[in-house]
Amino acid sequence: MEIIKYPDKNSWKEILQRPSFSLIELENTVGSILEDVKINGDSAIQKYALQFDKVKLNEFKVSDNEILNAENLLSSDLKNAINIAKQNIETFHISQKEEIKTIETTNGVVCWRKSIGIEKVGLYIPGGSAPLFSTVLMLGVPAKLAGCNEIILCTPSDASGKVNPAILYAAQLVGVTQVYKIGGVQAIAAMAFGTKSIPQVYKIFGPGNQYVTCAKQLISKEGIAIDMPAGPSEVAVIADESCIPSFVAADLLSQAEHGADSQVILVSNNLNVIENVNKELENQLKVLGRKTIAEAALKNSKAILVSTLEEGIQLLNEYAPEHLIIACKGENQLAENVINAGSVFLGNYSCESAGDYASGTNHTLPTNGYAKSYSGVSLDSFVKKITFQKLNKEGLKNIGKTIELMAQAEGLDAHKNAVTIRLK
Amino acid sequence: MEIIKYPDKNSWKEILQRPSFSLIELENTVGSILEDVKINGDSAIQKYALQFDKVKLNEFKVSDNEILNAENLLSSDLKNAINIAKQNIETFHISQKEEIKTIETTNGVVCWRKSIGIEKVGLYIPGGSAPLFSTVLMLGVPAKLAGCNEIILCTPSDASGKVNPAILYAAQLVGVTQVYKIGGVQAIAAMAFGTKSIPQVYKIFGPGNQYVTCAKQLISKEGIAIDMPAGPSEVAVIADESCIPSFVAADLLSQAEHGADSQVILVSNNLNVIENVNKELENQLKVLGRKTIAEAALKNSKAILVSTLEEGIQLLNEYAPEHLIIACKGENQLAENVINAGSVFLGNYSCESAGDYASGTNHTLPTNGYAKSYSGVSLDSFVKKITFQKLNKEGLKNIGKTIELMAQAEGLDAHKNAVTIRLK
Repeated sequence: MEIIKYPDKNSWKEILQRPSFSLIELENTVGSILEDVKINGDSAIQKYALQFDKVKLNEFKVSDNEILNAENLLSSDLKNAINIAKQNIETFHISQKEEIKTIETTNGVVCWRKSIGIEKVGLYIPGGSAPLFSTVLMLGVPAKLAGCNEIILCTPSDASGKVNPAILYAAQLVGVTQVYKIGGVQAIAAMAFGTKSIPQVYKIFGPGNQYVTCAKQLISKEGIAIDMPAGPSEVAVIADESCIPSFVAADLLSQAEHGADSQVILVSNNLNVIENVNKELENQLKVLGRKTIAEAALKNSKAILVSTLEEGIQLLNEYAPEHLIIACKGENQLAENVINAGSVFLGNYSCESAGDYASGTNHTLPTNGYAKSYSGVSLDSFVKKITFQKLNKEGLKNIGKTIELMAQAEGLDAHKNAVTIRLK
Repeated sequence: MEIIKYPDKNSWKEILQRPSFSLIELENTVGSILEDVKINGDSAIQKYALQFDKVKLNEFKVSDNEILNAENLLSSDLKNAINIAKQNIETFHISQKEEIKTIETTNGVVCWRKSIGIEKVGLYIPGGSAPLFSTVLMLGVPAKLAGCNEIILCTPSDASGKVNPAILYAAQLVGVTQVYKIGGVQAIAAMAFGTKSIPQVYKIFGPGNQYVTCAKQLISKEGIAIDMPAGPSEVAVIADESCIPSFVAADLLSQAEHGADSQVILVSNNLNVIENVNKELENQLKVLGRKTIAEAALKNSKAILVSTLEEGIQLLNEYAPEHLIIACKGENQLAENVINAGSVFLGNYSCESAGDYASGTNHTLPTNGYAKSYSGVSLDSFVKKITFQKLNKEGLKNIGKTIELMAQAEGLDAHKNAVTIRLK
């Protein structure tokens, strides 16, 4: 990794620039597929499945039999692991449930807020080299807890029409209601607009390649909600002399192996730490399965030497990393100053992969600096919070004058009149 | 209003179709203004202020003196009303603060979530016929409670360069940090990209005409968050024979006066109610200041006769109104079945204008059916919820095997290795 020493605060923005990420040139291609599925429904999906995934599909829905069989195809160890992860994710996300609090803001004026699950949600799970069944848990568990009625899942099949069994196992475990073996832009279109065989949903979640990301962005302009804007995955580690360089290197690599466009950042107040981590990176890279990908990602990556850890946290707040690992002494104190991050990992034993799989926190997080304004996926993402109010006559009397004066000053007579007529 | 009697469930979708609302044809015009401000900054803003608002601006920032003067220009009655409304909005929104709950999902694995205010937010308040100082309260109060550091407000001046004093009074009252007298697409661009005199923000809130709405949609593609997609305002009332038709008519008109594109829906299980409300509408329209606007809006509007109130609520869940008034006996029971709505008003004394101004709930709500997946503005809208986790060695031992198995099954060696190396 490139080492940058004591950068001036004015240069932070430039140093922290991410590899540029624009989807504008894809909009025409993606837009025409969306339009085609909107108009031609199932037959358009079949066409694109053949074209892109090289599979001839007569039926999109995964049958109950296929789902039952999936269970037999997995080792009991892996099923057990998935069950444990599901349990922890459930435990953490249940704690996000909001109780109804009834607030009497004025005598006779009672207001409250109630969370109600979004009726129909769609989860997209990419196929390809890594079958992300962990993402099925991360999206399906909160969807179920939120009380979403219809939870559909789209994921591409392989060329023989089969879906990865771990994805199917996780889907039935969390309570997905239907699984469809379709992928790519056509899957996003199907869930956004609905077709004869695939129901329309109100919100679409999940990762995908740049075509899928662009499709989600375009359908969000048509009123279908999406989880959040997406960009390449990233981690930042801040480490001092108390860190264990081999652990830090392992964490950086676990991010770097995601994709050649992933980015990792190391910040330290100690040049030795940076140099030792760099050495460890070289050692560990040699034996890595996804070595070529990780190597390419490290080329986008930087190690930054700062004067103090406090300055390091400031710099990282400017960067707003998706994942932030604090491998320093006094990590709790430093964490107090974190303002912009998706998820924060404290101390030497909180590796990012714990949160990616099994600690209980969600792994669908804001990338690309979006952590400055977006939260990761949580129970909140699957509900709408509806406000209610009930005024009795006394209550309206108490705030009626206020409403009348304000409505009048805004030039809205009828708003005023709705009060006046009741108090007459 | 057009009366539709006992429509078949299959026809609901068509009956409930909203007036079409598309911004695509504005994208080129709006996009070129955004681009101009992005490149040319303040001078582009001056140019558009002159062109659209007919005002020559040498300074955008509203001075402390102007803000002080504003206070003197308002009646003490109006100031008092604004203070009371602010107090109620504060009381309700404080109740939305989320305590930190620390959850030990497994022995030695501790996870929690912390809400942190978005550092920089921008509020847009339209000028024009109705000076929406109430919206300053609805956005500014939760922004301040959330702990946003920089809360900037843009609103157009009149041709003499003056900003409505009620807007300025409300802005200082809630703790807005800077007010800029600029409006339209150029204001959205300024907040999204920053200029020499106007700071960039991370999230933009507030209503506006279709150009402003289109601008917000476009900048959201560039990573600046927005409150929610917008459409024309709307109310639905469900009423039975216990309602007071003059109250219902007043509520329908208070929505209809917003704009010719507003929509109001009346649902009842009783034809007399519908006919009496229609008569009241005619009477009340005659004396209304914004009669022409309200009349036009009523042309988009419908009264629907249903067999039962339960069926009426089902139909309204399909419509997903921004505001829903339940003027029926057993209103609490009926409200239990509401799934899709922005804000719900129960009983004969809960008029929409109470929530618009002073009961304490927020009036920035999802329109256009977006209530199926979006919530209204709340304290949540001004924070990011960051997750944290801390595992000790024991904790990682407890879930290490789970992580290793899952990472391996997803083909992500380095994720697995981050655990293995720590447990060696």
